[in-house]
Amino acid sequence: MLSIAEANEIVQGSISTLDSIDVDLFAATGYVLAEDITAKEPLPPFPASIKDGYAVRSADGAGEYDVDFEQLAGSAPGSLNEGKVAYITTGAPLPDGADAVVQVENTEDLTGPSGSQQRVKIVKAAKGPGDDVRAVGSDIQAGEVVLPEGSVIGAAEVGLLATVGAAKLRVYRKPVVGVLSTGDELVEPGEQHLGPGQIRDANRLMLASAASTSGCEVIDLGIARDTVEDTEAKLQLAESKGVDVLLTSGGVSMGNKDFIKGILERKGKVHFGRVRMKPGKPLTFATIDASGSRKAMTVFGLPGNPVSSIVTYNLVCLPALRKLSGHQEPGLRRVDARTQTAIKLDAERPEYHRVSLSWHRAGGGAEFAASSTGGQISSRLLSMRSANALLELPAAQGVLPAGSVVSALLIGDLGGMPVLEDLPMIMPLKN
Amino acid sequence: MLSIAEANEIVQGSISTLDSIDVDLFAATGYVLAEDITAKEPLPPFPASIKDGYAVRSADGAGEYDVDFEQLAGSAPGSLNEGKVAYITTGAPLPDGADAVVQVENTEDLTGPSGSQQRVKIVKAAKGPGDDVRAVGSDIQAGEVVLPEGSVIGAAEVGLLATVGAAKLRVYRKPVVGVLSTGDELVEPGEQHLGPGQIRDANRLMLASAASTSGCEVIDLGIARDTVEDTEAKLQLAESKGVDVLLTSGGVSMGNKDFIKGILERKGKVHFGRVRMKPGKPLTFATIDASGSRKAMTVFGLPGNPVSSIVTYNLVCLPALRKLSGHQEPGLRRVDARTQTAIKLDAERPEYHRVSLSWHRAGGGAEFAASSTGGQISSRLLSMRSANALLELPAAQGVLPAGSVVSALLIGDLGGMPVLEDLPMIMPLKN
Repeated sequence: MLSIAEANEIVQGSISTLDSIDVDLFAATGYVLAEDITAKEPLPPFPASIKDGYAVRSADGAGEYDVDFEQLAGSAPGSLNEGKVAYITTGAPLPDGADAVVQVENTEDLTGPSGSQQRVKIVKAAKGPGDDVRAVGSDIQAGEVVLPEGSVIGAAEVGLLATVGAAKLRVYRKPVVGVLSTGDELVEPGEQHLGPGQIRDANRLMLASAASTSGCEVIDLGIARDTVEDTEAKLQLAESKGVDVLLTSGGVSMGNKDFIKGILERKGKVHFGRVRMKPGKPLTFATIDASGSRKAMTVFGLPGNPVSSIVTYNLVCLPALRKLSGHQEPGLRRVDARTQTAIKLDAERPEYHRVSLSWHRAGGGAEFAASSTGGQISSRLLSMRSANALLELPAAQGVLPAGSVVSALLIGDLGGMPVLEDLPMIMPLKN
Repeated sequence: MLSIAEANEIVQGSISTLDSIDVDLFAATGYVLAEDITAKEPLPPFPASIKDGYAVRSADGAGEYDVDFEQLAGSAPGSLNEGKVAYITTGAPLPDGADAVVQVENTEDLTGPSGSQQRVKIVKAAKGPGDDVRAVGSDIQAGEVVLPEGSVIGAAEVGLLATVGAAKLRVYRKPVVGVLSTGDELVEPGEQHLGPGQIRDANRLMLASAASTSGCEVIDLGIARDTVEDTEAKLQLAESKGVDVLLTSGGVSMGNKDFIKGILERKGKVHFGRVRMKPGKPLTFATIDASGSRKAMTVFGLPGNPVSSIVTYNLVCLPALRKLSGHQEPGLRRVDARTQTAIKLDAERPEYHRVSLSWHRAGGGAEFAASSTGGQISSRLLSMRSANALLELPAAQGVLPAGSVVSALLIGDLGGMPVLEDLPMIMPLKN
């Protein structure tokens, strides 16, 4: 049976980044750039004051001066007469003739009653030419690539793109994700009265939430009943809705009511059907080629157990969605963490044990502390609650003692990780 | 002058979590629960098979048996006749009379030609009662609080809520955030020809991107010109649009064209106007009380320099948005990291130095490596590109040597952190 690493190699090798589209900068957050973005002008485009203060000839030094004019941000640069200074605001262009700025804190206003000539005392002179002035191109040079193709667009990147006038951008399209649950036992989450043998469908909304968090458009395909006809109809619905990636769950284990795999084998190529992992052994990956007006479709048949379903989603589907969206490093990030409790290992399969990582200082060092989220049976979705990482436990006999260092794959934003202890700021120097 | 810690204490003490609203589970991702969610029924609600296989009386042991009937998922439990077994699928209710399941892999189908009685050989017997059966309530007990008030709703939480039938939820409302830039020098990002002294507005779209990443609705208030009238008109626009949090940038330094602070002092309470930090010294925080039909409004006057603006947003505004949204730990998370290059310190102000954290193994241990994003002048937005943390550098003379351990505040999702080296999975045991 395949390992997760082998499964990911097959998936990543079978799919390609989607085509690119134009988006407005206002809607670009979360996309990956499909082009290099180059600055057409230098930034600043003119020598600009860093402070509110007075534009001066630095050679003039300290002393008392007439204020020639006010140089405000957004106005064309004036021309400074000899022996005078100009009032200047932050971001304003340096007047012709001036070569430095003295911040207002280093001056004293000597202006008399209203209407009289403005005068100022420069108490502390500029250190030399360029003092408190941003030179042309000192932040960004003309022709500089400010963001290369493949950059993920976050807030700072939006700011950079706005700065260089990139109001429209070429980005990689994000996959349209269809979510489908299969099983006669499933009823909608809103159903308040469970009949005999019924449970509520958790996977579909869970996978929809996960995919939408990655910025994908999600199409809800509902619940397929355990018949070939209904399952095929849902697949056709996915195709007609333009789904790029179909996430089904249930219907992929050994039972004779499991149709998905057979249908996929007829329609496309099933690359694998099981992975050596705990939880989530049954995991089907198939690709259906484009044909006529139909788009190509990538299909993941996830296990029906909710924990297996979300763990395999994170380990295999999420990196696939990232690759399709243009990410250059689509895999999960690995860190190391120290276990807080003993953990029984599985002799046959490597286990992805759900944990909550927190940052912890001990014995002069600092590290991630990994707290198990409790009972790991694959139906127990409580074990995913507040999990932000998956410990990679090897298949082995016995018990991993508390205090072991294990690698862990990040599946949640650590910006919200539990706060175990009050960590003061480190003062690395005697101050 | 206030420290960032003192500033955050004032901000967090001056604002309260917003009111709560009802949302559909399909749209609940990212919200914070405003109620405890309790399971009304146990999960599973019936003893359920963990495997596809045969429902048996465990005492019967290995041997050959007639298959009494098929017990499929979603059907009411049948009644198992003595001396027989029932075919069962994963998730199906255990038939009355059966007490365990034997997975199909441990059996052999003995059924003859089509139409004949189904028979099966149990090759490996069940270990005892309950084998491969999930007992009623073993995953979730009736009456159990599956998610307490204050839980942040992610994909796993959506799954849990679906499981217990919580299709509508009470959550804390997210703030409506208005973004406003001020300055005569600013033109729209789409402007391709810069006049003398003009630059493009980067802050407004950058702050809009940041706030929308936190799930807030963003109202674009445009650019206010440097007049009292225009600035006041924009504030009234914010009020009329129902803005909870107004993020302005520019117009808060010492220059005489800076109006925001004066206007805020007339309309509400200005709590502070400067913070001892680099970048971003000018930071105004004000609250305007509700009055009549007008909502209360929290106002942050951020510096005009783009780096100062986004750094102060992360350090102070983001924790405020989180508190308003119901987060119980709204602050940034602190980790420790080793600097990769020497860094010159600022003698007067603590600096929040932008770095990119990666995970690194060295000398038997593992730690975050902090790579500086380069020149840290507050106008150089390139220093925010791919930054995922802010190093906390103390105000001190001299240079912090490379290899120093410093605390760092997380401002980006480490799930996308740069991959410095190929880190293999750790094998903590001899296997």
